[in-house]
Amino acid sequence: MIIQPIIDLVAICARKDVKNAILSPGSRCAPLTLAFARHPDIHCRTISDERSAAFVALGMAQQLKKPVVLVCSSGTAALNYAPAIAEAFFQQIPLIVITADRPPEWIDQWDGQTIRQRNLYGQHIKQSFDFPDHSEHKDVIWHAHRISNEAINTAANFPEGPVHINIPIREPFYPESEEAFDFYRPVPLVNPLKSDTSLSSESKVKFQNELERFNKIVIVPGQQAPDKGVMVLLDQLVSAKKVIVVSDTISNMQSENTITYHDQMLPVVDHANFSPDLIISFGKSIISKSLKNFLRSSGADHWHVQPAGYSPDTYQGLTKIIPSTAKDILELLLQSPHKIDNDFQARWHLADKSMEKAIKKLMEKENFGEWKAIYRVLQQLPHQSKLHLANSMAVRYVNFLGARPQEIICNRGTSGIDGSNSTSVGCALTTKDYVTLITGDMAFFYDRNAFWNNYTTNNLRIILLNNHAGGIFRIIKGPSQQPELEEFFETTQSLNAANLAKDFDFDYTSVKTEKELMNGLTNFYHPSIRPKIIEVFSDSAKNTAILSRVKSALKEFIDI
Amino acid sequence: MIIQPIIDLVAICARKDVKNAILSPGSRCAPLTLAFARHPDIHCRTISDERSAAFVALGMAQQLKKPVVLVCSSGTAALNYAPAIAEAFFQQIPLIVITADRPPEWIDQWDGQTIRQRNLYGQHIKQSFDFPDHSEHKDVIWHAHRISNEAINTAANFPEGPVHINIPIREPFYPESEEAFDFYRPVPLVNPLKSDTSLSSESKVKFQNELERFNKIVIVPGQQAPDKGVMVLLDQLVSAKKVIVVSDTISNMQSENTITYHDQMLPVVDHANFSPDLIISFGKSIISKSLKNFLRSSGADHWHVQPAGYSPDTYQGLTKIIPSTAKDILELLLQSPHKIDNDFQARWHLADKSMEKAIKKLMEKENFGEWKAIYRVLQQLPHQSKLHLANSMAVRYVNFLGARPQEIICNRGTSGIDGSNSTSVGCALTTKDYVTLITGDMAFFYDRNAFWNNYTTNNLRIILLNNHAGGIFRIIKGPSQQPELEEFFETTQSLNAANLAKDFDFDYTSVKTEKELMNGLTNFYHPSIRPKIIEVFSDSAKNTAILSRVKSALKEFIDI
Repeated sequence: MIIQPIIDLVAICARKDVKNAILSPGSRCAPLTLAFARHPDIHCRTISDERSAAFVALGMAQQLKKPVVLVCSSGTAALNYAPAIAEAFFQQIPLIVITADRPPEWIDQWDGQTIRQRNLYGQHIKQSFDFPDHSEHKDVIWHAHRISNEAINTAANFPEGPVHINIPIREPFYPESEEAFDFYRPVPLVNPLKSDTSLSSESKVKFQNELERFNKIVIVPGQQAPDKGVMVLLDQLVSAKKVIVVSDTISNMQSENTITYHDQMLPVVDHANFSPDLIISFGKSIISKSLKNFLRSSGADHWHVQPAGYSPDTYQGLTKIIPSTAKDILELLLQSPHKIDNDFQARWHLADKSMEKAIKKLMEKENFGEWKAIYRVLQQLPHQSKLHLANSMAVRYVNFLGARPQEIICNRGTSGIDGSNSTSVGCALTTKDYVTLITGDMAFFYDRNAFWNNYTTNNLRIILLNNHAGGIFRIIKGPSQQPELEEFFETTQSLNAANLAKDFDFDYTSVKTEKELMNGLTNFYHPSIRPKIIEVFSDSAKNTAILSRVKSALKEFIDI
Repeated sequence: MIIQPIIDLVAICARKDVKNAILSPGSRCAPLTLAFARHPDIHCRTISDERSAAFVALGMAQQLKKPVVLVCSSGTAALNYAPAIAEAFFQQIPLIVITADRPPEWIDQWDGQTIRQRNLYGQHIKQSFDFPDHSEHKDVIWHAHRISNEAINTAANFPEGPVHINIPIREPFYPESEEAFDFYRPVPLVNPLKSDTSLSSESKVKFQNELERFNKIVIVPGQQAPDKGVMVLLDQLVSAKKVIVVSDTISNMQSENTITYHDQMLPVVDHANFSPDLIISFGKSIISKSLKNFLRSSGADHWHVQPAGYSPDTYQGLTKIIPSTAKDILELLLQSPHKIDNDFQARWHLADKSMEKAIKKLMEKENFGEWKAIYRVLQQLPHQSKLHLANSMAVRYVNFLGARPQEIICNRGTSGIDGSNSTSVGCALTTKDYVTLITGDMAFFYDRNAFWNNYTTNNLRIILLNNHAGGIFRIIKGPSQQPELEEFFETTQSLNAANLAKDFDFDYTSVKTEKELMNGLTNFYHPSIRPKIIEVFSDSAKNTAILSRVKSALKEFIDI
């Protein structure tokens, strides 16, 4: 039997430009599967492990900047989406999560694959919708159309995020042979016009007046997609001596003019000489713990810029929320007559340059280990490519190493290790550019089902840093001093990726030395039929020693 | 710094006989990890993939019939527990789920690994507790002790289930070297006395009087752990012609005296001759869809026996809820003067014997395929062993094949494929008996991280039925007729387990014929250092043909 409101939902998706769906197999969701798979304008892929499926969809939506649909069957399938949905919620990525459900009368009757799916994602979803379980009244069909439009609009409205449509479905699930799917019957389309949020004239004057109180202004962009227009403005602001910009690697706002060695610099300088009196932020989170701590103890005012939505107080000094695009505010700053303190600016940039020089010098002569491997890999990355960094060490190492021209992707909404592989697979499905994933063994093997599908990602390149453990725990002082370190924190694990590479048909190279790595990298970015992995083996204790040696040595290069 | 209420929580667990914990590595949970790992009476294991960790804990708690503790860090780690928690909730298995959290002030401030953990498991948890974030007032310490006692009591009270304790923790996480953990300071212990729920004398009389209205009484035990006392009573009731017992394989109540071929018999007999007038059930769900449909359309009264908790109306005819143990009610039935209809009883038992004979005859001469493989494996299973059956085909095939002496385990709370491997690993950790897992390729590879840990389960034996797809979809009429069958329903996948066996150090045998299988089984149940896998390759289309051929042939063996 054909369930017309489901056909209409799919038709509305396509007509609202939602054209990618990740389906997971199931019986209850068959009417959804068939409708999505048969729509000529929707590209469907099927992935069996729903945890991975949802991160793949997230990786795609992140790049496409459009909602991607997820469809799964009833029961715990839907719960396996939850980690990616939380990541999408905090990273503000639009997903349309559609779960098939048993009809209401069969909930709690001990029937198979039946859980309590209403509001399943609790507080980690922008909105949850209960699709009607029948279409026997015209208002019910109107309701189904309302939900279809509203869910897509809500996912795509700023701040974007995941929405959930739970759809109770009764048997029969399958169309009779004479039934055809009609995707083109008239359905109501509700499309919001594009709008901009900008400050009122009065607020603009007030903003510029208040600026005069400050002469140590630091802009801290948080995680966001690259935006050339914004980057040009930031460069102009720095050149005009109106701000300094401290840019984490995940901000995608790094340039010659921005500070990028803060993560190494801040622990070794006298904070009094660097403290801002005003922090202006836009975008989402940052990863540098030393920058966070520095800003939190600076006592500076903090103004956060975002067009809409909840504003966190990440640096414990939030005094103003600025409902505007970053671009508008940066232009306003550029027009403002204020200047920052010359010495303040000079000190930051001098320290940054010193750090750059020092780190390069130290890294060149350092022993081979996972940090040196990353240092070498970054030198070989194609300029026009994308770089996915797994939590927790990969992204930190890269942040230590300064500015990157490539787009940086990292699951910092919740900072989990559970979906890095899958997110990078989703990314690779949306582009012909190379996508490089730098990851550790824990994150990599955790999410190995990322590769359990039938789709080609021959543009994927993986640098797997295998120290056979969660190396971060050796770097933190607390756990490294406990007798439980190896069993209960690092969680020593013996896998390498050689067998996995056979299972999933990856080119595989294993390296233990710098020379082997350089050999492996020679052809790494040549076009190939298969994705490629270079697995870099290193010793957790030695990696820790290198990190600590470099950090100590840095002190000698700076005296501010 | 030592957080005494956390030490006390661990001390209370141990003193209330909760002595097994599965820990997943993390930073925020370090105070919990250290306290559990250092308690001399608690056996801790560490498993990195939280989805698997939770199913392992479930597999253990199911066998131990005692709560098992889960500990994870903040963020999506906790969400990865969700599928197993839902399974535990519906299968009524006690788990103490302890999640470390950021302190309340840091929620929603875009800090790392921070989600909204309060009430994270929504409607799939018996109770959620918010542990205090400080201990600066004596009432707060009393509250922490209350929560510790109450959570364990709630998990263990009938009907058992998972509980959640969310614990906000501030830095510093680690004890100073001079700080010792004191697990033996006085803490309040609140222990419920054991109680029995039994009918009042008046209800007993009423029960027996009402029985006289019925002479076609069918007892349908649902999923439960084996119970010899109850099985003896069922046998006595059948011998005394007071009931017939229709026992699914997951009921663990199968014997010579119970009907066990109902799943094959009901589609081929005239229901009018078999319809009961009273259904008495105890335990949880059944899997046989033909039995469910038969009972739903029978028009019979249905009395459900359980000491407490919500009673579902699984057969759409529930008229009485009997708050009592099964044992008490079966004894009452035995003492009651009623008799069931002779012909009714004879018909059921004759049909069951005919089916048994027919299936054995047909199976012996059938072609080799996954069903035949299971048939042969079941003949070799050690009597004293446990059998875990994955969803969805493995458990159905076994149910078709009649009575089993072994304990049968299957995740039928939510009937997911997501945790069968892990649940069987959990089971294997609690016993020296052989644990055999029979599973399909989708369930097996979905949950392959089950084996990603450092613990030995050399008593585990896996029969992996690999048809490179979700074979159940070819068996259901609807999807098998759609052009999308292979890509979007069966989800063809190319993996085999050879590489996985190398990764996780399993003995591995691959078989394609009956002869190879029989060879592989020769030493399969000999003691070994490593777990063993036999991977049985078969063709999805041929499997379907065999199933359909046997089902058709069965009609010829019965004429009732």
